[in-house]
Order: sequence, then structure tokens, then C-alpha cells
Amino acid sequence: MLLERIRSEGIAHISYLVGSDGIGAVIDPRRDCDEYLQIAREEDIEIELIFETHKHEDFVTGSLELSNGTGGEIYHGSALDFKFGRALEDGQSFELGGLSLRSINTPGHTDESISLVLAEAGGENLMVFTGDALFVGDVGRTDFMGPAEAGRLAGELYDSIHGRILPLGDGVILCPAHGAGSVCGSSINVREESTLGLERKLNPKLKMDRDEFIRFKSTEVLPKPPYFSVMERYNIEGPPSLGQLPVPSAVAPPELKKLVEEGAIIVDTRFPPSFSGAHIPGSLSIWFGGLPTVSGWVIPHNKPIVLVLANRTFAELATRFLVRLGYDDIRGYLCSGPEACGLEAWYVEGEPFGRLGVLSVHEFKNLLDSGSDLTLLDVRSEEGWREGHIPGSMNIYSGHLEDRMGGIPRDKPVVVVCNVGNRATHAASLLKREGFEDVSVILGGMIAWNAAGYPQDL
Amino acid sequence: MLLERIRSEGIAHISYLVGSDGIGAVIDPRRDCDEYLQIAREEDIEIELIFETHKHEDFVTGSLELSNGTGGEIYHGSALDFKFGRALEDGQSFELGGLSLRSINTPGHTDESISLVLAEAGGENLMVFTGDALFVGDVGRTDFMGPAEAGRLAGELYDSIHGRILPLGDGVILCPAHGAGSVCGSSINVREESTLGLERKLNPKLKMDRDEFIRFKSTEVLPKPPYFSVMERYNIEGPPSLGQLPVPSAVAPPELKKLVEEGAIIVDTRFPPSFSGAHIPGSLSIWFGGLPTVSGWVIPHNKPIVLVLANRTFAELATRFLVRLGYDDIRGYLCSGPEACGLEAWYVEGEPFGRLGVLSVHEFKNLLDSGSDLTLLDVRSEEGWREGHIPGSMNIYSGHLEDRMGGIPRDKPVVVVCNVGNRATHAASLLKREGFEDVSVILGGMIAWNAAGYPQDL
Amino acid sequence: MLLERIRSEGIAHISYLVGSDGIGAVIDPRRDCDEYLQIAREEDIEIELIFETHKHEDFVTGSLELSNGTGGEIYHGSALDFKFGRALEDGQSFELGGLSLRSINTPGHTDESISLVLAEAGGENLMVFTGDALFVGDVGRTDFMGPAEAGRLAGELYDSIHGRILPLGDGVILCPAHGAGSVCGSSINVREESTLGLERKLNPKLKMDRDEFIRFKSTEVLPKPPYFSVMERYNIEGPPSLGQLPVPSAVAPPELKKLVEEGAIIVDTRFPPSFSGAHIPGSLSIWFGGLPTVSGWVIPHNKPIVLVLANRTFAELATRFLVRLGYDDIRGYLCSGPEACGLEAWYVEGEPFGRLGVLSVHEFKNLLDSGSDLTLLDVRSEEGWREGHIPGSMNIYSGHLEDRMGGIPRDKPVVVVCNVGNRATHAASLLKREGFEDVSVILGGMIAWNAAGYPQDL
Amino acid sequence: MLLERIRSEGIAHISYLVGSDGIGAVIDPRRDCDEYLQIAREEDIEIELIFETHKHEDFVTGSLELSNGTGGEIYHGSALDFKFGRALEDGQSFELGGLSLRSINTPGHTDESISLVLAEAGGENLMVFTGDALFVGDVGRTDFMGPAEAGRLAGELYDSIHGRILPLGDGVILCPAHGAGSVCGSSINVREESTLGLERKLNPKLKMDRDEFIRFKSTEVLPKPPYFSVMERYNIEGPPSLGQLPVPSAVAPPELKKLVEEGAIIVDTRFPPSFSGAHIPGSLSIWFGGLPTVSGWVIPHNKPIVLVLANRTFAELATRFLVRLGYDDIRGYLCSGPEACGLEAWYVEGEPFGRLGVLSVHEFKNLLDSGSDLTLLDVRSEEGWREGHIPGSMNIYSGHLEDRMGGIPRDKPVVVVCNVGNRATHAASLLKREGFEDVSVILGGMIAWNAAGYPQDL
Repeated sequence: MLLERIRSEGIAHISYLVGSDGIGAVIDPRRDCDEYLQIAREEDIEIELIFETHKHEDFVTGSLELSNGTGGEIYHGSALDFKFGRALEDGQSFELGGLSLRSINTPGHTDESISLVLAEAGGENLMVFTGDALFVGDVGRTDFMGPAEAGRLAGELYDSIHGRILPLGDGVILCPAHGAGSVCGSSINVREESTLGLERKLNPKLKMDRDEFIRFKSTEVLPKPPYFSVMERYNIEGPPSLGQLPVPSAVAPPELKKLVEEGAIIVDTRFPPSFSGAHIPGSLSIWFGGLPTVSGWVIPHNKPIVLVLANRTFAELATRFLVRLGYDDIRGYLCSGPEACGLEAWYVEGEPFGRLGVLSVHEFKNLLDSGSDLTLLDVRSEEGWREGHIPGSMNIYSGHLEDRMGGIPRDKPVVVVCNVGNRATHAASLLKREGFEDVSVILGGMIAWNAAGYPQDL
Repeated sequence: MLLERIRSEGIAHISYLVGSDGIGAVIDPRRDCDEYLQIAREEDIEIELIFETHKHEDFVTGSLELSNGTGGEIYHGSALDFKFGRALEDGQSFELGGLSLRSINTPGHTDESISLVLAEAGGENLMVFTGDALFVGDVGRTDFMGPAEAGRLAGELYDSIHGRILPLGDGVILCPAHGAGSVCGSSINVREESTLGLERKLNPKLKMDRDEFIRFKSTEVLPKPPYFSVMERYNIEGPPSLGQLPVPSAVAPPELKKLVEEGAIIVDTRFPPSFSGAHIPGSLSIWFGGLPTVSGWVIPHNKPIVLVLANRTFAELATRFLVRLGYDDIRGYLCSGPEACGLEAWYVEGEPFGRLGVLSVHEFKNLLDSGSDLTLLDVRSEEGWREGHIPGSMNIYSGHLEDRMGGIPRDKPVVVVCNVGNRATHAASLLKREGFEDVSVILGGMIAWNAAGYPQDL
Repeated sequence: MLLERIRSEGIAHISYLVGSDGIGAVIDPRRDCDEYLQIAREEDIEIELIFETHKHEDFVTGSLELSNGTGGEIYHGSALDFKFGRALEDGQSFELGGLSLRSINTPGHTDESISLVLAEAGGENLMVFTGDALFVGDVGRTDFMGPAEAGRLAGELYDSIHGRILPLGDGVILCPAHGAGSVCGSSINVREESTLGLERKLNPKLKMDRDEFIRFKSTEVLPKPPYFSVMERYNIEGPPSLGQLPVPSAVAPPELKKLVEEGAIIVDTRFPPSFSGAHIPGSLSIWFGGLPTVSGWVIPHNKPIVLVLANRTFAELATRFLVRLGYDDIRGYLCSGPEACGLEAWYVEGEPFGRLGVLSVHEFKNLLDSGSDLTLLDVRSEEGWREGHIPGSMNIYSGHLEDRMGGIPRDKPVVVVCNVGNRATHAASLLKREGFEDVSVILGGMIAWNAAGYPQDL
Repeated sequence: MLLERIRSEGIAHISYLVGSDGIGAVIDPRRDCDEYLQIAREEDIEIELIFETHKHEDFVTGSLELSNGTGGEIYHGSALDFKFGRALEDGQSFELGGLSLRSINTPGHTDESISLVLAEAGGENLMVFTGDALFVGDVGRTDFMGPAEAGRLAGELYDSIHGRILPLGDGVILCPAHGAGSVCGSSINVREESTLGLERKLNPKLKMDRDEFIRFKSTEVLPKPPYFSVMERYNIEGPPSLGQLPVPSAVAPPELKKLVEEGAIIVDTRFPPSFSGAHIPGSLSIWFGGLPTVSGWVIPHNKPIVLVLANRTFAELATRFLVRLGYDDIRGYLCSGPEACGLEAWYVEGEPFGRLGVLSVHEFKNLLDSGSDLTLLDVRSEEGWREGHIPGSMNIYSGHLEDRMGGIPRDKPVVVVCNVGNRATHAASLLKREGFEDVSVILGGMIAWNAAGYPQDL
């Protein structure tokens, strides 16, 4: 028996390839599905079954792509009218090379959510693939259908977990669709391996009674990036076929300027000090590690994309990150020769560049103490802000900044802060694009602020 | 939190690297320890703790090697006088970046066997590293100290499992030192992932009561390769330092012949059809996949080794396999130029070569039916032979063949059979080396025999 | 400036990527053109020019494929009516990032043959890409249009070399389309790097005067595999588009048998001892290194192909070898699971297998001396045979064996010999497929025969 | 025959492995010699001969290292008393698998300089390895023994080239020890492949007559980094053994601060915008591509080194670059966890950081036009400065900056310029370390200045 966890960084998505006696099933595949094919080839496994535990909101499903490449049949829950694949009955079971894989309805995160139980043939349960119903240390969101439905869904999720999943047995291995860092849960544990027994004992959400659980989930506020609606449409109707992963090519400054005129978005993936030092005016800062998630908040799906990379070797991974969110029109990365990659290609031609102020926490503390008139903008989540922030700061989550920019005074300096500096730099690039002139960021952010022992408001 | 399983093929050994907040522990490291170092580097983990769950019998421990490379401290059970590392008290606990790692004495496989329990700081148990006490679907051997001690050890093992390990909780994840295919258990499950809850329900050995268990373990017969005693000496006294993995070089035929005169063993790792077609007279056939285990039965530790490979790209892995068993004097592999690798280097110089007869199951069935006077030698384990064999076959396990060769008539043809053909070819090479002249093997072995529907005796 | 030599093993083909200031030209690309694209990407070169020095006979051109992937323009000589690309005038010149690339007509190998001269802008000649006109130590063939034209072509080749190429200057670097081992020359030097000056001094063909040269070339006998005519058709009309290199998959024995019924050719790429030990009845032996050339003699272009490999890691390279010869219908390789690859997958199911006798030179010498009645078939080239052979041997080049098999007696044993044993085994597999029953090969071949000091006839 | 060019980036060093019939020679090996060993293994070549064409000044020789790993014998010129290897007589010849390798004395660059002529056995010359005597488009330096000797050496070099090398024949392939970008020549051609015939026609230094040549070489001014004297000592006495290439490890900020107290040099290898945005106060900026050369000007050989990298994947190559210059005490790279590599590890702990002003050429032009009182420091070579510079600029080559810093006013802003911005940032980091407070650099440098069409003085 083979169990492979295939992880997608950033969105902290986990998909699974289970194989037994040469037959394989993939659960919740991502769109760049070369890795499944390679494992299957090496292990001589025929992927016959492809399951969607639910309609994913945070990435484009790869099930059609994988089905094209393998001939595997796609299955999903019956409570939603998917335009592809087949609907599963509650309890429907599949043979998998001497084992069995049984679908059980576990609504709550969404109505059509299912879990898949791997069991010995006709016998004991071994593992359960819970999608977004149950995570390690957390449970799925119930807010996607709006506040009116959150209570109903929370009740159903409670029943699914306590009535259908936990009874599978303490010893059953838990295989959820997300790990720590995903926005699909607020506090998923950094430990990836777990069991139903461990969850029963350690998962704080499972210690609530039904009413408490419904109350908690009904009021839980979690970010919902605008791109989620695009993903939902793709994942119900079936996304466009990708075929081979696109290989981005070098784009020289003249071509880049032409693309910008045609509406292209320049995404600068370098670290904050680099963006701060020099960047193409109008470009968006999205630090490399933020590419798989932050992009979905700010990049429209109908615009071409050009990347600015610290090194061209990162082009492939950047492409994977974007393609997983449905951004297929990646025109390339700034480069004007093997020796002039990254921003050098730009400034060596005498093109003008922007800068961004950076402050250490000590410098900013001095500014504060000297009574400077400025706006301190904290772009972390509301939850993070509530747990502690610099006195006098205004909180707008970076993802909402474009909509709420009107509330920020344009006639005085704006200093942006987040945890480390990446998100602040991203937010600062949004402000600068909209014409804010005096913008700077605190490098080191709240972590450095706290390390320095400076005061926080709660 | 990070949990990495590092697997050693053939001996089906599993070692673990657990990391949390930059601090790491390795449990039961193997001797070629570059993989631990690489993961630690990539994940920015300092390996501070190295544990031996027991004195391994089937491979050379890598703890000294790994300690040299990392400065990590070595720990092991206190009931044996190891010449290196520190002895653990029962219940001794270590901090591991916010988690704890607790040693508990779990004697039975050996007296000094311990298990390590990973737990939340001051709280719930998460995983247990059981060494050779408890496997997925099986338990450790109790026969290594001889029949006189087997009963006592079996009782202790029962108490360790039922009294100390299972009470850790059904939801606890099981991390044993071996997977399916290891001689350290007779029937380890092909499913590698398990929990204490699953074992309680599914492991047949855990369903026996104490007396039944002791009876069963006291009479269990398992192979004990002669090299185990060398491993034990190494693992108590501390093996010689390996440093860098040796890189074997090409050996041309003249040099090979000189090495043979000095006592070198030629190990031919090609598949049976190749060995059958042509081989260096006197060479031992050990199919590549058998290298990590079969070698220990037939290669003395004080002789140099020369390999015959199907392709030179296999040289590194072959070296790892041998080094794990303490064979450090690998002189190289037959080759006389980039175009003449493998056996071609030999026969192109006009050197004489040996052949070995091969028979299909149909051809052998015809021989049988025609009443040919021959010895049919089945070299599978006694257990395998008992479960079904060709009528009239004589069973000597390949590992015992050198000792029991006297019982095989030299005046008539010997036909050797095993499951597939690899072990039979190995055994045939031992017979030919000792002067048997008319030796052949059944290609496809018992699997093909059964596929053809020919009769078996039970 | 960048000059990359891209070599194709077996056919000893050399193609070139020349780049300067971001602009690149490829000369005589092969069909699997990922390597050109990768170098271009890494070096940030735009491939704008693609040249065919002539209509290749020994492989499928990759110029259309490369043009599809890059937008580069294809150019070739004007004396042949190619169905794609543009015709070059004699002396036509292209800028290449500060250098120039000039086409000169150098007929002789074929009428449309050109050479390309790389020069400093408006100045000194640096390198010449001679295609099949001039090699290191040899010159191109003039026999492809038949004996009637060979004399005329030889005269033209003499004039092209002496009148157009050598005058470019002794210091000019020579870049031909083939290296040692190609059938496009009879005696190409193993030294790949050369200059016109070195050729003038060292190339024996350039020391002949015009008449001598024409006489020599008119009577030169070189092998012309039947697949050359397919290549010529492809290369004039434009071969089918390959797109991505096909990835062969595992084929289990039942599927393999079905494919054979549909006409598939089984190509066993293992070494002679392996084929000799056991093989699928009816399969063709083509040793791995012979795949790029020998295949073209014996595999029809309208049949599917299944491979038998020593190891599945060789599948990709085998595919490249075959695709270069226009064999696109590769169904996969024998395999029935990760543990049973290669021939084991076959015999473990009880399928019958063939064997082939092997003899050492000493054993064969004894047979000869004892007066055995047998046919000794030498399958090397006529030229090789003339330079020395075992007394009494009959010479049929392996490539002509299918046509001339009628001359070999079927009522007595056939022993096949070549240089080493690979080609003999290949020939033996052809004989066995046609029903010859008593066939064996001499392992080590003429090299071992001579090493043993046994007598030769000249 | 095999000829492999092994290139070392940055120092533009080329070493050669020549092999024939299994015997190999390496000419001018570098210190990290794993690549020679790997090629030798793959091609089944025994490296028996190792040659030093002269005592290298710009890198540490790898001949002892390679000899340790292969047993090959080291040879060098006799006119210098090396403490290792054997001295060659003029004309001494070695067999190399059917070819010959002949040493000829070619003094001029240094007294002990030799060239090696590869020839057919007893016959025609094929290639010449000229070390630092003759390059493509240039000749070796004659200034290393001081002005008093430069004339004598120039005369000898003229005689070596015209009297001994060029007469080998126009068709002979040229294999020098350096390519374009090396400080061992002032104008080596970007075309790497050449012949003696091409040099005779195209190399401008070979068109001078003897007097003209001596005059030119006697007055030629080329940079001589201070580390050259360390290299010379190493290369005469034999450098310390490296063994395995050191693998640098992560260094967290507290450890880094402790190392700095002990005298460690922090080398920040990120691009100018990144260094400009934020850097560790006191750190040296050396852009990654400048590491193999610039380091030798400013890093003392008795201090430990800590790196700041844009990405940890660059650690190995950075180590190679430094080890080639004899910097063996590399303590690691800044990092405090897998997620916080590079400078983030520093500022996230609230550590103070430095910044550096950057200006576009337009901004600087405005400053100039507005009559700002500042020092414009051009840190390119004197030669580059002479060919065109911004009016009013002061020229100090970056390598001489530490010695000549006294001449720069400390009471007004310093703006630093070079070609692109890398060297200017490096120089600015030197100034800031010495207490200059108002320092900025022009991003894009002279290339951007000229692209913008701004005026230059000549």
C-alpha cells in the first residue's frame, strides 16, 4: 500500500495519492498534475479514481486535467450540480486493489462535502480523507454561503464530525485537504500527522457542544479573497485545460512597457528590501512566498502578468503558484540577457524607478515619540490586530485595502506595518499605485516591535 | 513540526527525523547518513539528539557517524553495556522545540529495547517510536538470545506492548523501525502508516492472550543470517567511521583476476537471465534487490568485493546497500572502458565464462512427467515451502545452503526453484562454486508454477 | 559568442547552436529539440535562424519542430525542392548579433548541400559548418544517388572541398554534421575538434588528386539502411510534428501479447548474455547502443513497438533514439509492477521464453578443430570481414540478412559472429524469428578471437 | 579522444581534461576538483598527468588536490622552484593513449611559463595549451615582476609567441587558460574557440613588431589585486588540502554578531537594490557575480566570513568562488529558520539596519544641473574612465579605494558610479564602513547615462 501526500505551498493544500496493487486514487488533485503522473509511473500505478471532497474555493481543481492524462473517472458529492464528473451516493464504495474506499456525506463546510474512508476489504477503517470538514486542530469554514446560512451549515458540520467522522474510530488516520497556513481554517496545527483520537482530545473546536459550536462558527470572521468566486465558477463548470505547464520566457524592458500599455500587471516577487531599494513604477509587490495567496486578492483574471524575479530559476515555481489560482496568461519575466536579469535589466537602460521608505522599529518608535503627524496603517487581519498592535494604528487588512483606501488621508505620511514586512510592502505598493506619495514600511513589523519590547495596545 | 521517514530498501528499515522549532532528533539512523544531514540543512534543523531504540542486528548503526557530522548526543537503553553514547533512565524526557520526547523501557525484543514517546509539552501523546517492539501487523522477534530465553523475552514483550505501549492511547501514531519485507518480523504489513488503535484491532499478534503469545513466540522460527553477529559486535562497540560514502571505481579484467587471487568475492548483481547467459566462473549471483540482505549470508566481512553491474549508474546504490551491512572494502565494478561495462568487459578479452541452465515451468513439468532422475531443490524459507511446493522437492533455505550442501547428490542434475528465480539463481551460483556441474533454475519459480495451474504438495 | 555542440549518440550526429548578442542559429537540428530550447532559455538567446546543410538520410530533421517552438526561419540549399523552409542563394548572408553567417554551395554529397561560414562582421572567417561535405578525417558519401551519379558527385565534392571550403583558411574551425561512428562516413576520426589546416595535413581523402578521389569515391561501398528512403521522404516533405517527447508507459504481458497479435514488434534492448539467457519468443534483439542505427534496418515504420529494457530508467533515452528515426508509435515497455520490470514480468506469469546458445572463442575453436558441421556466419560489414575473419566463415552484413537468409542452410547449426557479440545476437534473433532452430553466437566476437591469438583469414 | 573545457566563472579561468584511450591529463586544474573526477569516472579515464602552465596569480591551484584524489603526477616549468611536483625539461614529451603531449618553454608572462602541445603520435600538432602566454585576441601580462622586468618579459613573450607557438601551424587549436573577463588579459575576446591561424590574423597584439610590442607591454597598466601575492605563495608552496568542499551552514543573528566581534567579515551578495533597501551595518556589498574577483581585493585571508545570500540555494556556488581564492574559513550564511533566510532573519529580530541612497541617471542629472555640492566618485578602472565619464567625476578604481579614501572629502555627499551599479554599491559599502555618512549610488551607471544621451567627458 502506498500513501503519498502532495503538498502545495502557500495555499497549504494537501492532495493524496493512495495506491494498492497497481490501482490508484487521487483525492483533491491540484491543476499542475505532473507530480501525480510521475509517482504513478515510478510505482507502476494506474490512476483509476479521482475524488473531489468538495468544490474548492482557494484553488483551481486539477481533476479534469488529471482525468485527461490518465483516463481516471472523477467523482464528487451529489448535493451540487457539477458540470463534469459523476455524483456519489452516500456510502458508495469502490474497490482499490484489495482495499475499499467509501464515500460518506459530511456536509457543513459546503452542502456537497464528502469524506472518503479507506478500509480493509470488508473491514476495519484505516484512514479518512476529510477534505475541508475536519483539519488537524481545526474544522472547516461555514461562512461561504453568507451569514444567513452559517448557522445551519455549522450545525451540519457538527453533526458530520461528531456523528459520522469521529465514530470511525480513534485509531483512524486523519488526511485533511489543508495544513497550517491555509485560509480555509483559522488555526490549523503545524503538526500535519494526526488521528481521530488525537483530534478528539486535542482539537479545541471538538470540545465545544453543539450550540457553542454553532455560535462560534456563526460569528467567526475569516478573510474571503475576491478570487474565490472565480475559483468556484471554474470548479463547478470545469476549468480550461492546461496541458503542459507553461514555460515563461524573458521579457525585455521595451516589450514590458508595451505589455503594460495593454493592461499587463507587473508582479514584483522580490523581498521588501529589494522592492524598497528600486522597483518599476506602478508594479505590485507580492513577495515570492505570498504569490500563491495574495495574488488572488489583487490580480484580475483577465489581465496578462509579467514577473520581476530575484533569479530566473524561480520562474517555474512562480508559474505553478499562479496557474493554481487560474492565472494562465503569464507573459514572462523581466530580463534583457543572461547577465541582466531582474531589475537590473530595467535600470541599466536608464528607465526611471520607484523607491519605498523603510524604517526599523527603533526609528519608527522615535518618530512616534517625537509626535510626528502620520497615519500608521496595520494591514494584518483584524484578528491579528486585535491580539495586539502599535498604539494609534488603523487596521485595514491588505486584501481590503483597494476597497477602503478612501479612508486614508492623502496629505500626510503613511507608515505601513504587518508582521514581518512582506505584506506591508505589498500594501504600500497598492497605495503608491493609487497615487499616495509618502509611503514607508516598518521592516521587521510587529515581530521586531515585540522583540524590542515596545508597547502594544490590545 | 516535521516528521520525515527515511527508508532503507531491502532491509525495510525506517529511521525518523523529528524536528520542531529548529531542533531535531533522529531515531535509529543508518550508516550512510547524508540524507539526514541534507534534510536538516534544508529545513534549518540542528540535530541535537540521536536515539538507538535497541542494538540492531540487521544493519550497522549510523549513530556514531551522524554524531560525528552533527555533534548530536547519542542515547540508548541502559540494560546493555554499549561502548558509546549515554544510557537512558526509564521515563527520561527531552525537550524538542516545544514538544517532548520521553524514553520508556519496552524490553522483549531485547533487554535494552526502549520506545520513544513524542508528546505535546506536558501533555497528550502524539506518536511512539517503537523500534523492534511493535510493527504494523506484527511484533518484534524474541529468538535472538536462543530458545532458552525466548519464552522470558516473549513475556516481557507482551508486557511492554500491552502494559506500556498500547495504553499510550488509540489515537497515537505508530512509528516502528521496520516495514514489510524485513526479517525482523515474519509478517509486517505492507501498509506503513498505522496507529495504536489500528494495531489493537488489526494486529493478529495482539489478539493472543499472554500464554498464547509466549507459546507462539517461543516456537517461532525465523531466519538468522550469520552476519547478524557481526552487526551486533559493531553496534555494541561502535562501528568504524565511514566519513564520505566510498565511490567505487572501474576494475578491468586483469585487475579483477588479481583481486580474485587475493581472495576477492565477485558479486554479480544482474538478473537471472543475464547470469544464466554468461558469468565469470566462480562469481556469486546476488540479484540487485537482494544485495541489502542476501549478502549478509554469504559474503565474509574480511574479503574485498568486486561488483558486476548491469549498468554503472547502479554503483552508488550497491555501495550503500553493502556499507549498511558493514562491507567497507568494495574495490570497484567490472568495466574496461566507457563502452565495455558489465560482463562485456570480460568476454571481449577472450576470458572463459560460465553458463547456467534455465527452465520454464512447462519444460520442468515435462521433465518431471518424463520421470527424469534429478534433485529438485527449493531454496525458499521452510515456512514458504510448507505453504505449498512442487511434489518431490527438497527444501534447504538458500541461507543455509553452504552448510547443508553435503546432503545434495552430486551425481545427478540439480534443478533449483524459489518464488521468482532470483534466489534460485543465487543458490545455483553457490552450488556451481562448490563444484556441482549440472545445475539449472526454474525461471518464474513457484509463482509461474501456480499461474500455470500445476499441482502443489502442502 | 556561444558555440554549443549537441550530439546524438549512435548516429554520431552533431548539431550546433551558435549565439551572439542574444540572437541564435541552429544548424541541422534533431527532432527531439528540447535541448536547443533549454540552452536558448538559459543563455537568453532568441533562435531566429535554422539551417539544413542538406537533406539528411540518417535521421528525421528537427527543423520544423524547432521552428514551431521558436518561430525561427528555416533555410536550405536551393538545388532540391523542399516542401518547407526557404531556399538559399549561393553567398547569401545573415547578420548574427555582430557576426555574419554566409551560405556557400558545396555540392557533392548531395546536389543541394551547402556549408555555412561564420565570420566576423565584414571580415575574417572563423568557423565553417560543413554538413556532410567534410568530416574530421573523412569526406561525405557520394553513393546515395546510385553508381551512375557517384562519379559526377565525387567530382563536385572534390571541387567543393578544394575550391570552396579549404580556401577559407587553415585557421578556420571545422564543424561537421557527424563524428566517429556515423555511417555517413567510413573512417571519421575519433577526435572531434579540427580545423581546415589540420584536415589539409591529416585527412587522407584530401591528399588524393581529383582523379584518384573520383575513382576512390566511385567504388566505395558503404551500408545504406532501408530506412534512409523513409528519412529522405520525411526530410523533403517535412516530418509529422512531435510536440512533446512521448513518455512510454508500462505494458503488462497480456497487453503485450495483444499488441503482438496486432503486429507490434518487440525490441529487446538488453545485452547479449541477458537475451541469450531468456527472451520473449519472436522478439528482436537490438542492444541498447545499437538502437539509434540498427533499428532502421529491421523495424518497419508502420508497426507499433514494445520495448524490453534492462531497467525502466532507460525508457526515455530509448524513445529519443527511436523518434529520431521516425518511429513514433512506441507503445511502452514490458513491466508488470514496480518490482517486476524487464523480462521477469514475462516469465513470472509462466509465459514460455526462448534461449540462445552462447560460445566462448575457445569453445568455438574446439568445435572447429573437432570438425563439426556448422555454418559460421559473420555479420560484420564486408569491409570488416575483408580485413580479417575466422577461416571458413560466410559474410552477410546483419543489415542484409533478412534479404539473403535464403543462402543459409537450415539443416545444420548456425554460429554467428561479429566484433563483440551485440550484432551477432541481433542477427541470431532475426534467424530465430524466421524459424532457424539451432543458432548460437560467439560472445566476445572477433576481438576475443584475436585476443586469444587464433588464426584469421584475410 | 576527449577534450573537456572546465570553466570557472568570474575569474574566466579555463582548465582542460584531455583523454585518449583511458588515459587523461588535466591542465591547470582549479581547487574544487570534483568536476574532473566526475568526468573521469563517467568516461572511464585514469588521470595520470597534471600540468601547471605557470604559477597562477588569480586563483589557488588545484593540482595537489587533484593529485591526492587520483595519484596523477604534477609537472610544471623548471624556471621556478616549486615546492611540489616535478620540473619539466624543454621539449619533454609524454605518451597519452596514442597521442603525445609535449612541453615547450614559453616564458614571458612569467619565467617558468610553459605551453603543452598535443600531437599525433610522432606527428602533426593538433592543439596547444598556452596557459597565460597567448589568449584569444590578447596576450599574457608581463607586469607581475614590476616595471623593471616588464620590458625583458615582454621581449621574451614576443619570442615565445612568434618563435615557438605560432610556428606550430595555423591549423592548430588554441587552448588558453583564460577567457573574456579575466584580469589576466585586458581585452580577451568573447569568442572562446580559436586557432593559431585566426590569432595570427585577428589578434591585434600579434600585429605589432617586437619593439612596438615591448613598448606597449612595458606601459600597459592592469589591476593587480592584493590577494595575488597570497595566491603566488600558495601556488609555489602548495596550498592547504581542501578535501571535501565545505558545506556552509545557517548562522542566526546572535551567532553572527558574536562572529563579527571575533573579526568576521559579513559579505552581502545581494543585488544593489536589495543592499540599498536594507543591510547589516558594517557589511560589505559584493554582488554575487563579483564574488570570484572582487573578494580578493577586500577580504583578508585571516578572517572568518559570513555570507548574506538572496537565497540559500546559492550557498554552494558562493563557497566554490571563495575557496578558489583561498578563503577556507566560511562560517555560513545568515538564516534563522527555513522561512527567514537572507536579511529578513536580521530585521525580524529588531536589529538595526543600514540603507544606501540610490539615484536614477535622471535624478543625478538634475542634481548636477542644480549645482549641488557633491563628490562624484567613478570607481571603474582608469582605462574605462578615460574612455568616457561624467564631467566632474573623480576616478578611484574600487580596488584601490581603501588605500586612497583619504582624498575624498567627508563633509559633503558622495555619489558613486560605475558601469551598472554593482561595483558602485560595493564601493559605497567600503565608504560607509569607514564612516562616510552621505553616500549614494547611481543605479544603471554609465550604461544608463549613455542610454539617456547625457554628456560625457573623454
